[in-house]
Amino acid sequence: MWGGGRLVWYRVKRKGLSCCSTSIALNNAMILGPNHPDPWIPSTMDILQTANSRADDVQIAAIIDGKSISQDIRSQIADQVSKMKASIGKSPGLAVVSVGKRRDSHTFIRIKLKACDEVGIATLIEELPENCTEHQLLNVVSGFNENPLVHGIIVQLPLPQHLDKEKIIDSVSPEKDVDGFHPLNMGNLAMRGREPLFIPCASKGCIELLLRSGVEIMGKKVAVIGRSKIVGLPTSLLLQRHHATLSTVHAFSKNPEKITREADIVVSDVGIPNIVRGNWLKPGAFVIDMGTNRIKDPSSRHGYPVTGDVCFEEATKVVSAITPVPGGIGPITIRMLLSNTLDSAKRAFRFP
Amino acid sequence: MWGGGRLVWYRVKRKGLSCCSTSIALNNAMILGPNHPDPWIPSTMDILQTANSRADDVQIAAIIDGKSISQDIRSQIADQVSKMKASIGKSPGLAVVSVGKRRDSHTFIRIKLKACDEVGIATLIEELPENCTEHQLLNVVSGFNENPLVHGIIVQLPLPQHLDKEKIIDSVSPEKDVDGFHPLNMGNLAMRGREPLFIPCASKGCIELLLRSGVEIMGKKVAVIGRSKIVGLPTSLLLQRHHATLSTVHAFSKNPEKITREADIVVSDVGIPNIVRGNWLKPGAFVIDMGTNRIKDPSSRHGYPVTGDVCFEEATKVVSAITPVPGGIGPITIRMLLSNTLDSAKRAFRFP
Repeated sequence: MWGGGRLVWYRVKRKGLSCCSTSIALNNAMILGPNHPDPWIPSTMDILQTANSRADDVQIAAIIDGKSISQDIRSQIADQVSKMKASIGKSPGLAVVSVGKRRDSHTFIRIKLKACDEVGIATLIEELPENCTEHQLLNVVSGFNENPLVHGIIVQLPLPQHLDKEKIIDSVSPEKDVDGFHPLNMGNLAMRGREPLFIPCASKGCIELLLRSGVEIMGKKVAVIGRSKIVGLPTSLLLQRHHATLSTVHAFSKNPEKITREADIVVSDVGIPNIVRGNWLKPGAFVIDMGTNRIKDPSSRHGYPVTGDVCFEEATKVVSAITPVPGGIGPITIRMLLSNTLDSAKRAFRFP
Repeated sequence: MWGGGRLVWYRVKRKGLSCCSTSIALNNAMILGPNHPDPWIPSTMDILQTANSRADDVQIAAIIDGKSISQDIRSQIADQVSKMKASIGKSPGLAVVSVGKRRDSHTFIRIKLKACDEVGIATLIEELPENCTEHQLLNVVSGFNENPLVHGIIVQLPLPQHLDKEKIIDSVSPEKDVDGFHPLNMGNLAMRGREPLFIPCASKGCIELLLRSGVEIMGKKVAVIGRSKIVGLPTSLLLQRHHATLSTVHAFSKNPEKITREADIVVSDVGIPNIVRGNWLKPGAFVIDMGTNRIKDPSSRHGYPVTGDVCFEEATKVVSAITPVPGGIGPITIRMLLSNTLDSAKRAFRFP
């Protein structure tokens, strides 16, 4: 069985065989893998500094205007909501559960409520104190699950440490899970030939953007950088359903730039400003930057401007199209929440 | 926004933008992607013919002995089952539902029942006629869901066309879904930090084999060829949890061999004999062949010997280790069914 000179790697590993064969067997925790966080380490460059551009470098990329696309979507949703009102006298309803006083969470909630208001989706909000019990939170969710006026429920994340996030997500009825985070919806998203009741908003927005831009996905090489449960994972699952040839890059990937440089479409969900440099990208690629990172910049009016994962200045000199941050995928993602809530109401009212 | 000469691809696609922007928006069926089957087309070579070997070619690969690994696992399970009997006087129970008279299905069922018998897992089998109604089948599953002597339920696939396979899979209690095909278990497998009640047997066997062989998965480049719901998909999800840098190759992938040639670990689940040639593989790679293909061979005693997806003769001259077919991952997969049934009984009896 053994011979040749190409077995070094396997031979080294093979030492583990005897010791592993008794201890590892049938251990589900081992089989499910180590539950590490993703320790991304930005390359040595200062995250704000971009590479020196050569004088002859010019921007060649189309900058995708997420705002104008999101306005198209908004008016289509508003139109459908008013048709529903006119025809059956009912409106979709979204319930938001907020725990604690995180400033960023309250900003996100305000944006979502405003977006609902713009299209005629009714909203309910329940604010719980930072120190609320899990039981209190579960009761609020259960109340919304039973409420026939509520077609979508979102529990604004992150939750305080003392609350079991997964347990709370599981408690949202899959029929009202407009965030698409319930494992039943995630499983049906993963399994081709099945239809989840809801697709997570950022992932749905990503595909919506590609389809509206006329980008062919089938057979294309796609690199998804990052694998968060709310963005990277569902986006990878959805792109697979579109028959992309998918590579997933994460904090444990060696030479990530080698993989992303071969991709026709790059989706980034890392959460580190400028980690994706121009030399990570293939000329002519289509880049969707899902990162939303606040960086300290005393020169900025707000002090903490938002930036994406992709080094925008460098990327625009290489790729054919890119979503900016802000003003790219963000506004579209918000509209996907409205779209999910509308879909849910249509199902509840059996409205075509 | 436009300039440079690298926009051809995007420009061509961009024509679609205006026409798409009205018709595609908010169409969930479009967003979920076209539900194509995987039309693998074997390369022009005769699937039985292998490339001419040079005289100096020698086999360098370790041939993984799946039978002997499965015997280790079997004896460990048998040991745990007898401990359970001795300590609480109870045994795990597996129920099998069979529909129709497919010869291959009956062979698989016989193998599973025999494997249960060998370790002391009790079995129940319900055989329904080919023309049974969905209602009859759902009743049988529901009976097993309620039966406290049953800890695992498998509905042998494939089912006759007139039965809704997904509906039947959904009807199996997630607590007894030892095949791991229920979307709730699949969703919890996909979502890191969560634990599915069951991991699909072939995928669990694949990781069990890698762990027992002392193969490092974290950060390794892994190519999974094929994406079936019962093998390729869950194996990809599980390998991701082990922090592999994963690429998924399927029938729509261009130059699949270019991707697989870069992988340290290759898992194949295509269902086409010899589709993975020696030149698809990286020297020193670890190859797990999940294919089980019957090929016509008049010279064989049985007429239809079983072969895998990987051109074994060529692969053994390139890679460091490979699972043969038969005698590779198959026997391990069967034992994973026993392992899942035992785990389920332990949960039911709160047995440590």
